[in-house]
Amino acid sequence: MTSVPPRTLCSALAAARPGEVVRLQGWVHRRRVLRELTFLVVRDRSGLAQVVVRDGSAVPPEETTVEVVGTATANAQAPGGMELTGPTVTALTEPAATPPVELWRPGLDVALPTLLDHAPVTWRHPRQRARWELAAASVRGFRATLDAAGFTEVQTPKFVASATESGANVFEVDYFGRPAYLAQSPQFYKQQLVGVFERVYEVGPVFRAEPHDTVRHLAEYVSLDVELGFVRDHRDVLAVLREVLAGMVAAVREHAGAAVERCGAELPVVPEEIPVLHFRDALALVGAPEDEPDLAPEHERAIGAWALAEHGSDLVAVEGYPMAKRPFYTHPWPGDERWSNSFDLLFRGLELVTGGQRLHRPSEYDAAIRARGEDPAAYASYLQAFEHGMPPHGGFAIGLERWTARLTGVTNIREVTLFPRDLTRLTP
Amino acid sequence: MTSVPPRTLCSALAAARPGEVVRLQGWVHRRRVLRELTFLVVRDRSGLAQVVVRDGSAVPPEETTVEVVGTATANAQAPGGMELTGPTVTALTEPAATPPVELWRPGLDVALPTLLDHAPVTWRHPRQRARWELAAASVRGFRATLDAAGFTEVQTPKFVASATESGANVFEVDYFGRPAYLAQSPQFYKQQLVGVFERVYEVGPVFRAEPHDTVRHLAEYVSLDVELGFVRDHRDVLAVLREVLAGMVAAVREHAGAAVERCGAELPVVPEEIPVLHFRDALALVGAPEDEPDLAPEHERAIGAWALAEHGSDLVAVEGYPMAKRPFYTHPWPGDERWSNSFDLLFRGLELVTGGQRLHRPSEYDAAIRARGEDPAAYASYLQAFEHGMPPHGGFAIGLERWTARLTGVTNIREVTLFPRDLTRLTP
Repeated sequence: MTSVPPRTLCSALAAARPGEVVRLQGWVHRRRVLRELTFLVVRDRSGLAQVVVRDGSAVPPEETTVEVVGTATANAQAPGGMELTGPTVTALTEPAATPPVELWRPGLDVALPTLLDHAPVTWRHPRQRARWELAAASVRGFRATLDAAGFTEVQTPKFVASATESGANVFEVDYFGRPAYLAQSPQFYKQQLVGVFERVYEVGPVFRAEPHDTVRHLAEYVSLDVELGFVRDHRDVLAVLREVLAGMVAAVREHAGAAVERCGAELPVVPEEIPVLHFRDALALVGAPEDEPDLAPEHERAIGAWALAEHGSDLVAVEGYPMAKRPFYTHPWPGDERWSNSFDLLFRGLELVTGGQRLHRPSEYDAAIRARGEDPAAYASYLQAFEHGMPPHGGFAIGLERWTARLTGVTNIREVTLFPRDLTRLTP
Repeated sequence: MTSVPPRTLCSALAAARPGEVVRLQGWVHRRRVLRELTFLVVRDRSGLAQVVVRDGSAVPPEETTVEVVGTATANAQAPGGMELTGPTVTALTEPAATPPVELWRPGLDVALPTLLDHAPVTWRHPRQRARWELAAASVRGFRATLDAAGFTEVQTPKFVASATESGANVFEVDYFGRPAYLAQSPQFYKQQLVGVFERVYEVGPVFRAEPHDTVRHLAEYVSLDVELGFVRDHRDVLAVLREVLAGMVAAVREHAGAAVERCGAELPVVPEEIPVLHFRDALALVGAPEDEPDLAPEHERAIGAWALAEHGSDLVAVEGYPMAKRPFYTHPWPGDERWSNSFDLLFRGLELVTGGQRLHRPSEYDAAIRARGEDPAAYASYLQAFEHGMPPHGGFAIGLERWTARLTGVTNIREVTLFPRDLTRLTP
């Protein structure tokens, strides 16, 4: 050949003209050396393509990156009905070491530590990669929905001066010789920015130092945060959440349809209106004592089952959580201050989102902070926004890893986190 | 009125039908009490609207949030030719405290400490808010360009086990009783993920503990990171950077056109091909000694002026920086290993982006790490990706705050950072 054809993605080989010279680039996904020929499956970001090597030329070991130039040849047995023949195979790096898992097998049945210790390699498995493709498409849908609704994306600081929101269990940093803390959430900042932009969102890492060792907690996770002003109450917030979830599911369908199939995800139908239960009624429904301050995991599962049975919905909101269990900035339920204008959203029986209406009057903040035995002066920089005029507002936060775990049906959120961080894990 | 009309945004008042009952929600941007009437300017996320209060009813002080229901009335002197008359003004919170700066004035001529100490309030100024609107639209354009080009968004950990990339000046965290560090960049992770997705990007915070006290350094900033596989060399990376910058400018025009006018930003024309100078020729151009290892700020300014004069371009790339000044993973210049396949992009004479081709063969990493007197074992988890097959690849990182500062012409990047963090500042 005198000229090099442009690169063809593996998924596009099926559309090549038989006889056309095609150039692929990717990884040796599978190499099967038979007596007369070698079958080479090339993997790139788009999929797989089959190459038949007949002339005895060497094919490097699996996972080596290669460039393959050959002739598109119809073959009903090849993926997409087309394969490359008569190829020149050029390695783009040194022969790859044998992977810790066989990436070419349809499944990836390995123990969790193997999956995580070798994350840079195990994420290459098409099924595993599909899980992250769902996450990425979800975030894309999250932003697209909010961009279309007049929200402004913000980026708030991760270094904060004090461990205010929940008091304890924050990571301490040596900040130029004095202590600083890592933000547990952008809560205070997104509220302040409602005072500027009315409607804001942020996608970013949050840091939780609680020494949890469970399948659903990480020391660092990705929080999808939303906050909006001029709401009537938390129901307006829930309505935005509904749009956001619908947009996330739509984006997964649109941008990661193949990945949904590859990893066997079951996408929820987001109902026009998400069913809502008051906390008091939720307790009654599951037969819990009426003074329970929170829902236990088995209660959440029962409520999820109820929503599916009664409303055909994978999603259900529980509103009115007891004020005593909510942060100080939570807006009480008008007329009955035992309850709050807040909600949790359960997705298939697991808490996915916490949200609600916040206080917005300076006097309310003053009282709420004092009622917790704290000094409002400690919150001076946050309270500026309220003293200078804030609208009624509220918001919510979705944990990305929990969302992806529920979509894909994995038990442990570490399986859908690119490089999870927990009590014991800081690498890879 | 028996029914409450839906909310109208201030910017949409001009399109109301005269005589129509309109409901606005926003902040008291300006209150001018005259003898016979009060002029009230309401501000919301979309803009300003004028309300004329004749009946002597009280208008709360500036920055108080209000709801105003009144009648749309044509008035050639009002913004957009329409104002609200006969209004009912309802405060949505307690009367706001007097703001630290007069937000209703066209300019915001305050000292930097005032601007930053009162960030939750000073960002409300329409000109100041416009600066962030440019930043947000830029990020939107960044992602849209890369999404369209087959990139996958990733989220990489901010907790890392060792201070590897530049050795020193990292923030140390007490991580469940042992030391961890905050990532100075997603460099190692984005490279590993090229092994999975080929083309990745990330928008997120990075943490720099260098004790810089300058107008262009922050302890925490937003990095727009890109990495892609199957490149020929750094010129392929530069071509993607060109597309990304063009997409960012286009998105600013499309989504933040009004903000551009409000803050007087001058958008660059991104040329079809960004002019490129070799480092050696750049030194000659500015009359610097040929053994200079880096470009001084005045050299960068001179090269920026040259690019504008010779190529009519606000952007110019300098390629081939000396290997000695680049990180160990930098790919050398083929045929002359004094130079590297890396570049800096200057925007109006200031460095905005660093990028280049990386090493991709495991033996190259081994040699490069040893050449710096380090032990490859310290990089074991990173090097996994290379041992198991990586393509030739490269990437770049854009500092969001530097980009916005250059767009808007501000000197100090703190002015375009929502809540800046530096040597001395941890609040608000």
